[in-house]
Amino acid sequence: MWGDLAGVGRHPGTGGYRRFAWTREDADLREWFTGEAAARGLDVVDDRAGNLWAWWGDPDKALADGTGPGVVLGSHLDSVPDGGAFDGPLGVVSALAVVDALRHCGFTPARPLGVALFGDEEGARFGVACAGSRLLTGALTADRARGLTDADGLSMAEALTRAGRDPGLLGRDDETLRRVGTFVELHVEQGRGLDRLDRAVAVGSGIWPHGRWRIDLPGEANHAGTTALDDRHDAMVAFASAVLAARGSAAWHDALATCGKVVVAPNGVNAIPARVTAWLDARGHRADAVRAVVEEVTGVVRVHGGTVTEESWTDHTAFDTGLAQRLAALLGPPGNPAPLLATGAGHDAGILAAEGVPTAMLFVRNPTGISHSPAEHAERDDCLAGVEALTAVAAELAGERSEPGR
Amino acid sequence: MWGDLAGVGRHPGTGGYRRFAWTREDADLREWFTGEAAARGLDVVDDRAGNLWAWWGDPDKALADGTGPGVVLGSHLDSVPDGGAFDGPLGVVSALAVVDALRHCGFTPARPLGVALFGDEEGARFGVACAGSRLLTGALTADRARGLTDADGLSMAEALTRAGRDPGLLGRDDETLRRVGTFVELHVEQGRGLDRLDRAVAVGSGIWPHGRWRIDLPGEANHAGTTALDDRHDAMVAFASAVLAARGSAAWHDALATCGKVVVAPNGVNAIPARVTAWLDARGHRADAVRAVVEEVTGVVRVHGGTVTEESWTDHTAFDTGLAQRLAALLGPPGNPAPLLATGAGHDAGILAAEGVPTAMLFVRNPTGISHSPAEHAERDDCLAGVEALTAVAAELAGERSEPGR
Repeated sequence: MWGDLAGVGRHPGTGGYRRFAWTREDADLREWFTGEAAARGLDVVDDRAGNLWAWWGDPDKALADGTGPGVVLGSHLDSVPDGGAFDGPLGVVSALAVVDALRHCGFTPARPLGVALFGDEEGARFGVACAGSRLLTGALTADRARGLTDADGLSMAEALTRAGRDPGLLGRDDETLRRVGTFVELHVEQGRGLDRLDRAVAVGSGIWPHGRWRIDLPGEANHAGTTALDDRHDAMVAFASAVLAARGSAAWHDALATCGKVVVAPNGVNAIPARVTAWLDARGHRADAVRAVVEEVTGVVRVHGGTVTEESWTDHTAFDTGLAQRLAALLGPPGNPAPLLATGAGHDAGILAAEGVPTAMLFVRNPTGISHSPAEHAERDDCLAGVEALTAVAAELAGERSEPGR
Repeated sequence: MWGDLAGVGRHPGTGGYRRFAWTREDADLREWFTGEAAARGLDVVDDRAGNLWAWWGDPDKALADGTGPGVVLGSHLDSVPDGGAFDGPLGVVSALAVVDALRHCGFTPARPLGVALFGDEEGARFGVACAGSRLLTGALTADRARGLTDADGLSMAEALTRAGRDPGLLGRDDETLRRVGTFVELHVEQGRGLDRLDRAVAVGSGIWPHGRWRIDLPGEANHAGTTALDDRHDAMVAFASAVLAARGSAAWHDALATCGKVVVAPNGVNAIPARVTAWLDARGHRADAVRAVVEEVTGVVRVHGGTVTEESWTDHTAFDTGLAQRLAALLGPPGNPAPLLATGAGHDAGILAAEGVPTAMLFVRNPTGISHSPAEHAERDDCLAGVEALTAVAAELAGERSEPGR
């Protein structure tokens, strides 16, 4: 499976992946997923947001006969610009491998077992992360989603239409949510926690508070060679001040702050910038620390006549504590459970957890901690340990069917 | 004429002009120029760089019979991204209006009178300003020009081919240069010098030392939400430091410094920038001050592991002093000559002056000083005063033909 995915959306120059929502590459990835599910005899259904669900066992029948709701494993296949091969795909490929592993052992789950492919997790195209799962739960409203635009000004509604989907379908999808009894997402770690602990797999304890803010800085377009410094309103200078303020404030408050994206107008070598739009990503252990960083950056931006607008905010998400401890115990020898790790990265699992779905995450060791980069990596042995752990978790949560065959 | 040009390459959203070298808009502007020249019975020839020359009188015959070389007026029609209507076009339109004005008065020049349309003055597409005049004089070599690339990676050679020109033609053009005895460029002022002096027209004294430097800052792509501040190599933070260093250093050295253009990779909201490429535009009265600014910025960039590469450098350009004083006296009442102004902006006139061509510039008042912006403006009366001044200059320099008619 890994080999089939390696070429999709890979940029020949950077070696990074460019797999953005509702593009040709996205369609190829969905087609790949549907094909893998079909090869395993799984039934694939989509939901109102376009996320795909491959079921082993009939989740609606199970709900009716009391053996449901199901256990769902999964992740996403889209990427940040020039992202790595593991963030997302490792969870989807591992979930499919779990189906193979269970069948290989002759294990038939008592509850239906699903493999979910969430769309648009990175939000690289329309700016809202976890758009697929947020649409599913209604955390992102259909109206707001349809109006989001990409860098070319194309709305999500239009992008959906071009991808052959009806944007009118968007909206909270209770029929799909009802089928999900537990959700488990396996993901490559995006830090060096497991590397430092010398362990291959961890169980997620929670997701840090995190959010995105848009910074709009007005300037006054003018000629770079003839306008006195005192006569300038240079939006790039204001932006530079905001970047350094964000960094300094994050260090002070023990949080993280990043200005990873900036759009400058007119972006000419000899033209004083008339407008800078930038995005601030801020996270931390504590919500008040993150809020303090944003407040300090906002202060600097306002001094330069700019504004800061919150595009998304997710408070601390705790995964189901009992479930996490149960899985940690399951994945270690007696007395030495798998470690519990919090993460600063948002995930679809966090969206489902916030919705009240019992949710867990497994992390697979990342030896360098590098993620969102072509250099993102996980060792083969650790990936196989991840599949083994996820298989154990699925067997534990779904239970074995007592009557032989079916 | 002004009305015909108003719509070409104007962006409906910003109201600014996007007229870049060897594009469809550029072709439209050249066609307009050729049409205006033809309507006046002028002979249009191109040079090896693709600049256009509309001649009243035969410049080669004049060289042979001793009445040459000619007097050339002109400027450019291309723009910076979202530039104004005046920077460039005012000089071309005024030059054509001079032909009309002289004919209206029954004035036949003794020397050939040319109107030049220089291509690619702003360098907005391929990054080298005054590319047309630099190619003409050889200050920009044909090999380097052909290899310059635009934002899409298209080379100038390929852009020329697509525009129907042979890139093999590029190279210093002595045949064309020989025809130019004097060059006079009229231009909207790009500062508030005339506004402060309460005058409509000035004569240029010289062009400040100025240059462009490319700043390459390496970072390490990583996840914005999970990478500790201490583990980061964030190219955007390095860039912000460089921007503020440039501003501070320019203020200290009484120079100008601008970072107007930046390209960030991967430019994702939640990805730590792996690479920032930016451009520094620096100018000033004194070359050593400009050099000091660049040196200080280079120091900051090197601390962050980056490099600074000089893309262009033009030392102080003095226009012909005797010519400037003669024209200033011509354009004011006795004892009150037109003011002499230096400018921080590069111009094709500067390239020809550096080549040794007797060269002058006229500036027309800009009430706000704003240029390279949709808000760039000059009052109608001042523009007409500019045409009147340029007409007087052309008549003075070309001299009247003694025999009636021809």
